[in-house]
Amino acid sequence: MDGVLADVELGFIERKALETGHRLSFDQIKGKPERANFPKLDEWVLDDRFFRDLAVMPHSQRVVEQLCTRYEVFIVSAATEFPPSLSQKMDWLGAHFPFISWRNICFCGSKTIISADIMIDDHYKNLDPFKGETTLLFNQAHNAEQPDGRHRRVFDWLEIENILL
Amino acid sequence: MDGVLADVELGFIERKALETGHRLSFDQIKGKPERANFPKLDEWVLDDRFFRDLAVMPHSQRVVEQLCTRYEVFIVSAATEFPPSLSQKMDWLGAHFPFISWRNICFCGSKTIISADIMIDDHYKNLDPFKGETTLLFNQAHNAEQPDGRHRRVFDWLEIENILL
Repeated sequence: MDGVLADVELGFIERKALETGHRLSFDQIKGKPERANFPKLDEWVLDDRFFRDLAVMPHSQRVVEQLCTRYEVFIVSAATEFPPSLSQKMDWLGAHFPFISWRNICFCGSKTIISADIMIDDHYKNLDPFKGETTLLFNQAHNAEQPDGRHRRVFDWLEIENILL
Repeated sequence: MDGVLADVELGFIERKALETGHRLSFDQIKGKPERANFPKLDEWVLDDRFFRDLAVMPHSQRVVEQLCTRYEVFIVSAATEFPPSLSQKMDWLGAHFPFISWRNICFCGSKTIISADIMIDDHYKNLDPFKGETTLLFNQAHNAEQPDGRHRRVFDWLEIENILL
């Protein structure tokens, strides 16, 4: 969800700009871990609006809705680390992805318990242990300068559309 | 979680007693679907205290803590159908099972996305599609008169302790 459907990096950039008056560019945060660019991240994500206000990744709504006609799509989000995010994420999905049923939403901690064929994620810690056949690494600043490993890097939802549809 | 760690049937009985002044016994609700015994169930579970106040199943805390020394234990709860339950369930686990990390908590809709070796559950809809090797059907009034199928029925946590420890 974060860094794939919800633009959490943009959320961090905007929050930091609000606090410091200085807006970081994508190039400035590229290649560094999220907590190096945004040391106050762990405080921000406990806010009761942070996740609710995140922007939707371009083209993700249309492509995910199309994926649902051909695949059984689950939204799996590592959310239990930040309990206030749970209801915000539920509301955010209802607002932006109303065609996703509650049956297909999963809020977890570790994603090692998830079984599926394809995983789209921006974190190696989720993709590396995944036992399904296809892993798509969603390009984000924090992973931009790491090697792709056995995963296929994708830069936006149009690329996912081409691969999966 | 519900019907295995949290005594949701007792919660329903108490809620109905509060509203009607008449307390149903386990024998009276046995063998009937939950919504037949408790037609107002779907209203109660949207309450912002219902899940928070549920009693802990006898012996479950001690046995789950012991299981954690020998197994990788995940608490998987079908919770996204009732969004107000999410934060209550998080708090309930923190209060009664503080040794369970957020990493090992998973709130989902359908449990078909869950991969594990052993599942303990009170619902056939969760146990039947499970691909792991061991399924334990936790005896509850709503499943008490159905055949066990390919699952092994257990009546309490002492029995689970004997089987798994």
